[in-house]
Amino acid sequence: MDLNADMGEGFGSWSMGDDSALLDVVTSANVACGFHAGDPSIMRRVTAEAVERGVAIGAHVGYADKPGFGRRFLDIEPAALRDEVVYQLGALDAFARIAGDKVRYVKPHGALYNTVGHHVGQATAVVAAVAEYDKTLPVLGLPGSVWLRLAEEAGLTAVHEAFADRAYTPEGTLVSRREAGSVLHDADEIAARCTAMATGQPIQDSSGGSLVVDPTSICVHGDTPGAVDIARRVRGALEGAGVTLRPFTG
Amino acid sequence: MDLNADMGEGFGSWSMGDDSALLDVVTSANVACGFHAGDPSIMRRVTAEAVERGVAIGAHVGYADKPGFGRRFLDIEPAALRDEVVYQLGALDAFARIAGDKVRYVKPHGALYNTVGHHVGQATAVVAAVAEYDKTLPVLGLPGSVWLRLAEEAGLTAVHEAFADRAYTPEGTLVSRREAGSVLHDADEIAARCTAMATGQPIQDSSGGSLVVDPTSICVHGDTPGAVDIARRVRGALEGAGVTLRPFTG
Amino acid sequence: MDLNADMGEGFGSWSMGDDSALLDVVTSANVACGFHAGDPSIMRRVTAEAVERGVAIGAHVGYADKPGFGRRFLDIEPAALRDEVVYQLGALDAFARIAGDKVRYVKPHGALYNTVGHHVGQATAVVAAVAEYDKTLPVLGLPGSVWLRLAEEAGLTAVHEAFADRAYTPEGTLVSRREAGSVLHDADEIAARCTAMATGQPIQDSSGGSLVVDPTSICVHGDTPGAVDIARRVRGALEGAGVTLRPFTG
Amino acid sequence: MDLNADMGEGFGSWSMGDDSALLDVVTSANVACGFHAGDPSIMRRVTAEAVERGVAIGAHVGYADKPGFGRRFLDIEPAALRDEVVYQLGALDAFARIAGDKVRYVKPHGALYNTVGHHVGQATAVVAAVAEYDKTLPVLGLPGSVWLRLAEEAGLTAVHEAFADRAYTPEGTLVSRREAGSVLHDADEIAARCTAMATGQPIQDSSGGSLVVDPTSICVHGDTPGAVDIARRVRGALEGAGVTLRPFTG
Repeated sequence: MDLNADMGEGFGSWSMGDDSALLDVVTSANVACGFHAGDPSIMRRVTAEAVERGVAIGAHVGYADKPGFGRRFLDIEPAALRDEVVYQLGALDAFARIAGDKVRYVKPHGALYNTVGHHVGQATAVVAAVAEYDKTLPVLGLPGSVWLRLAEEAGLTAVHEAFADRAYTPEGTLVSRREAGSVLHDADEIAARCTAMATGQPIQDSSGGSLVVDPTSICVHGDTPGAVDIARRVRGALEGAGVTLRPFTG
Repeated sequence: MDLNADMGEGFGSWSMGDDSALLDVVTSANVACGFHAGDPSIMRRVTAEAVERGVAIGAHVGYADKPGFGRRFLDIEPAALRDEVVYQLGALDAFARIAGDKVRYVKPHGALYNTVGHHVGQATAVVAAVAEYDKTLPVLGLPGSVWLRLAEEAGLTAVHEAFADRAYTPEGTLVSRREAGSVLHDADEIAARCTAMATGQPIQDSSGGSLVVDPTSICVHGDTPGAVDIARRVRGALEGAGVTLRPFTG
Repeated sequence: MDLNADMGEGFGSWSMGDDSALLDVVTSANVACGFHAGDPSIMRRVTAEAVERGVAIGAHVGYADKPGFGRRFLDIEPAALRDEVVYQLGALDAFARIAGDKVRYVKPHGALYNTVGHHVGQATAVVAAVAEYDKTLPVLGLPGSVWLRLAEEAGLTAVHEAFADRAYTPEGTLVSRREAGSVLHDADEIAARCTAMATGQPIQDSSGGSLVVDPTSICVHGDTPGAVDIARRVRGALEGAGVTLRPFTG
Repeated sequence: MDLNADMGEGFGSWSMGDDSALLDVVTSANVACGFHAGDPSIMRRVTAEAVERGVAIGAHVGYADKPGFGRRFLDIEPAALRDEVVYQLGALDAFARIAGDKVRYVKPHGALYNTVGHHVGQATAVVAAVAEYDKTLPVLGLPGSVWLRLAEEAGLTAVHEAFADRAYTPEGTLVSRREAGSVLHDADEIAARCTAMATGQPIQDSSGGSLVVDPTSICVHGDTPGAVDIARRVRGALEGAGVTLRPFTG
């Protein structure tokens, strides 16, 4: 099983999260590329630390929107979005290669992640950017998303991820954040669900039914000290259950 | 002989210069990387057109200063500058590779060009970035500059350029822009000087003496319609004198 | 009758349109405030020239999106949008006051203009910003828009504008730019329509019927040399028809 | 005596310092204006909280340099700098007025603060901006600085500040940060020095001699939890010594 988390989300004098602590927990790092967060020096530091620990480097591509942290939909033209994604891939890859590795996968961030789940124009644009840049790069996303469907149609490897702390509907989609109970906060419950997901056991869905989620990677958070603790708990539970943790990129 | 010019200096809806016209004239394109000018879609277009014409793509790296077009000294920490240069190199290289080629050389832009001529800290930073990114990339600059000296010490190939429209002192340095007569405007004179420089003949220096400038590349401008006309005249004069024009990168 | 046009849309070394020429034609200037276009020095210059000519200064507020020139919808939180509009109003007003006048009205730009036509959350936010900043400031927009309705409900003065070069539906709304014939290009036709609109005569709508448009201001364009010529033609036709041109703000 | 501190230095999702806690300690707030730090929503919040507590609002104007937090010298043209300062003044004043007060003073931030201490061109530019915007606004700075001298010559009120945690030379200037012992860290020592400065008593200078510093305002820091604690200690010590704390702006 792979654990992925967002990283490198500071900017200049502003910090966010504890990248070093989180890199000791996860096996894949979604590294911000300077558009919604991150900057060149942060990208250097995070990629170097990831390589030291054997953590796979993913390009966490986002809208060019630091004021909104990439969390707001932007109705950008697909051709412009495609080019912005290529730009981010090249920039991050430079640091990954200097650190001795390379970008291993791609995951959209924030509002772009949500948008490519259903927006054909923008999903096509991001897929085109990845395919142009490196056809061997897998992409990470939600099963059933337009993003993963178009990626597969373009010949890319589509990798399913689950969210450690999110409630699921009986159909296997995420419960909207606007609904009560959509985000789990209890560390034990989160750890237990992750262990179930990683070992092929069902979890409880939002209607109380049984749901088998079969992810290749589980996304944990690390933007608060509490979140890092939960991520550690998840890792501990998985290891306790005999699950081997390693990057999904092999 | 090689002719180089700055290119890709628009930004979003704002244009500057006629890149397509200029690409028909020069053999090397200094392409802005989105920090002082340029954006991802412009970088795609210019690199693609350059590759179509056999024009070599150079990374025109600059300060992160669009409001000032990279023309103002910024007292940035060397480590931060180094990382910003790596970022720009990776981003431009992504587009160059998609277009079927790669970044072939590096030239600093504007205030950064002037600064690395004498500022050891910043020159060292830019050299370190190039050396880390790709030790085989030649760098373009003025003979006698700290920039080229440090580049050579780091094992990079330092390439001398001359400026088509600038007056030279008897010592072979540029006359400061603050002095009268520092910039030439007569197309015939500029073309004649370039022909002299390209064929090993002396030009007249600012004190009326004779000066042999022996550049590997000559920098022409293209940010105004008149400038493109002068660049065309230079190319015509060189070809008329039997000088073969091709990228210095081979 | 009032003629308004967008102005101050350059940025740093990048120019757009000929503000000085356009200021000789219009009676109201929609001045960019540095978010989608414009910068402090451009704002100073345009406001000073407007005051010299007796042209009213309007705040052309937009999304913080220079890469997209404010032409792309951004799903910004209403509270954040409200604050960004206040910020822009204060900044432009500083230059208007130094020039000896003050901001006289507010008009949203580009995608924000389109969005507040129907998006209650964002329209409410912009209205709130204007009301907080100065309840006496009129706002400019399309009749029937959510923007003008909410402005009136908030006690602001809502002013109707027409577009000199746009086709109208029989219902009096603009024909979508995506449809053929939505934008007029013939200077004589445009001038004749503006004269009709300014004198209470009907114009032809897109179905060939007769439509009375009764604007308080007519928006002309000036971002190309041809556009400035058309604007001059409109002004000449209006003056020829005995229409007095002066700012709608009195 | 007045206590001033920098505030509103977050940006979007990134926070810095605890503005609310610090506003309970100081009497004057140097509020970032969105160029080196801060954004419209932060400016609204900080100005509103300042007005609630009777804390005077100062414009903390800086270079347009979020990546460097305004801490790097930028060789900007004086006219452009003047316009950027006017822009920041107008923007912050809009929020201060909505909150029921107005901008009460001006203090340059970071590298701009250091630069105007000696750089005539940039100091003249900032002085010109303040004088144009509102001749009644006092400016805060170090005694002996070019900034305060030029401000006085332009008819502005120049106000002397001291730094709570900095060592002073026998000449009454700050010991350079590059020298050992330039910054004090002991809360008791800092509080005692502030009390001495506020009551006309001498402090010990860096050579062990006696120095009378007679500031109108003392600058404290608040960018770390420890810094807020020291600021509280200073306030407590001053109050314990019978010093009345209130804004220097009256």
